Amino acid sequence: MNTALDCIPCLLRQTLEAARIVSNDPAVHEQMVRDVLRWTSEMDLSLSPPAVAQRIQRRLRQITGVEDPYRTAKARQNRMALELLPALRAEIQASTAPIETAARIAIAGNMIDMGAHASLNEADVHRSLLQATSAPFYGQMDLFLQAVGEARSILYLADNAGEIAFDRLLIEQLTPKRITLAVRGAAVINDATLADAHAVGVDEVVEVIDNGSDAPGTILDDCSPDFRRRFADADVIIAKGQGNFESLNRQPDNIFFLFKVKCPMVASHIMQPTGTQVLVCTNPEALATAY
Amino acid sequence: MNTALDCIPCLLRQTLEAARIVSNDPAVHEQMVRDVLRWTSEMDLSLSPPAVAQRIQRRLRQITGVEDPYRTAKARQNRMALELLPALRAEIQASTAPIETAARIAIAGNMIDMGAHASLNEADVHRSLLQATSAPFYGQMDLFLQAVGEARSILYLADNAGEIAFDRLLIEQLTPKRITLAVRGAAVINDATLADAHAVGVDEVVEVIDNGSDAPGTILDDCSPDFRRRFADADVIIAKGQGNFESLNRQPDNIFFLFKVKCPMVASHIMQPTGTQVLVCTNPEALATAY
Repeated sequence: MNTALDCIPCLLRQTLEAARIVSNDPAVHEQMVRDVLRWTSEMDLSLSPPAVAQRIQRRLRQITGVEDPYRTAKARQNRMALELLPALRAEIQASTAPIETAARIAIAGNMIDMGAHASLNEADVHRSLLQATSAPFYGQMDLFLQAVGEARSILYLADNAGEIAFDRLLIEQLTPKRITLAVRGAAVINDATLADAHAVGVDEVVEVIDNGSDAPGTILDDCSPDFRRRFADADVIIAKGQGNFESLNRQPDNIFFLFKVKCPMVASHIMQPTGTQVLVCTNPEALATAY
Repeated sequence: MNTALDCIPCLLRQTLEAARIVSNDPAVHEQMVRDVLRWTSEMDLSLSPPAVAQRIQRRLRQITGVEDPYRTAKARQNRMALELLPALRAEIQASTAPIETAARIAIAGNMIDMGAHASLNEADVHRSLLQATSAPFYGQMDLFLQAVGEARSILYLADNAGEIAFDRLLIEQLTPKRITLAVRGAAVINDATLADAHAVGVDEVVEVIDNGSDAPGTILDDCSPDFRRRFADADVIIAKGQGNFESLNRQPDNIFFLFKVKCPMVASHIMQPTGTQVLVCTNPEALATAY
């Protein structure tokens, strides 16, 4: 997706929220906002929103000297998610459609997104996860079930800390030995890195790699050669979150995007209201004929 | 009030909404947003939000060549307000506290603000006006009643089109011959001008002047000498709307601000939630000893 003009006020709001999380110094907040105003006044709108956010977050780390400003928040989100796992795992085990149930839970977990909302209400997360299968849903679940049923290799692109614990539940349902889980290559917002994969123990069940990039999405040109090779070779890609959708939705590969709609621009693009759980494929026709 | 960093994303959203109201040309929308990004990257934050909005609206008129982009919207708002007047006038006549009731209605009418919300729902306006006296209220009504009871001269600063019809109801309760009603000196957003005063007939009951300025607030240095003289000479000033509050709240004069809280920054300043009807005085102590 391009960055729409409507994204710009939102990116500025995110900038200010992020600056306030990282620093108590009003001069830092002002410098960050002025920097982003100057960049965006001249920006190439064909960049995706995660590419702009990547630049914002790099600048924030540079100004403050803090390498992982969201470390504490991410640790809290991982703990909160782990507390919910027993109940959710029981729900999946009791389900007559366990992969579908696990997918809905993994999508519900995508609400733990500090790019969209800097402040997260823990009670809201609990409620949303425990009611995951009754939330509004849009997408191609049958196509997804068919594709993951037949795929020899799956590349699973994680999104956020906390959420990655719920990704583990879906991975457990999908024969983990054929799956590679990819996290971000460096800290950016509350996106999951190798440390978060380890914190929730998903590295015990699946191979985990990092993508070599600090974008809050998957900008292929910015990723490592190894990641790009795995991306090209995978039969199916499962991409979690809006950031991955915004940066990969023009790719011709067989990518299933699983996310919760959190902004009006994505809502407009996908023609579903914010709050909807989405599971869509980049290229359903190509996929339908691929097997 | 200064422009807070939090105001900047909101000013950008307003810019985009305004550009879309005025023009269907995406190139105009982009040029406006880029211009405002560039200015605000270097702006003096001690300017009030109405001073920034004044510059944005001037640029919009310059780019599009449209002198009064909100003319149609204002005409519709005036008509909508006039339709409500009979019911509201009856409510005031039946009230045991008619000035207070008229003040509450005039404050409720301040929701017709296209700076805060470009899209206004007519049903919401109806409901809000017909339930004006039961809305959450904060302020110094007794002080206001005392001040307007004793004042020899009142300068009443209008805010928006549509709303100015409800201002007429309050003016009718306050002995109009001692009142001067001031509107903006030129078209800006949906703020009321002489044309709107005429459209709702308030010029039949009170002297109406314009302030000589195209700011969506009252920036005294930008107003005409005649307006400034009347401002200095008035015993009491009634200032409607957030724009007048944001631009005059540091004045030491005896100004009563009547408005509906519509943004988080004003809410934080006044320590009341958005949606609250507010009636506050700049200087209650000075006023208490003035008579």
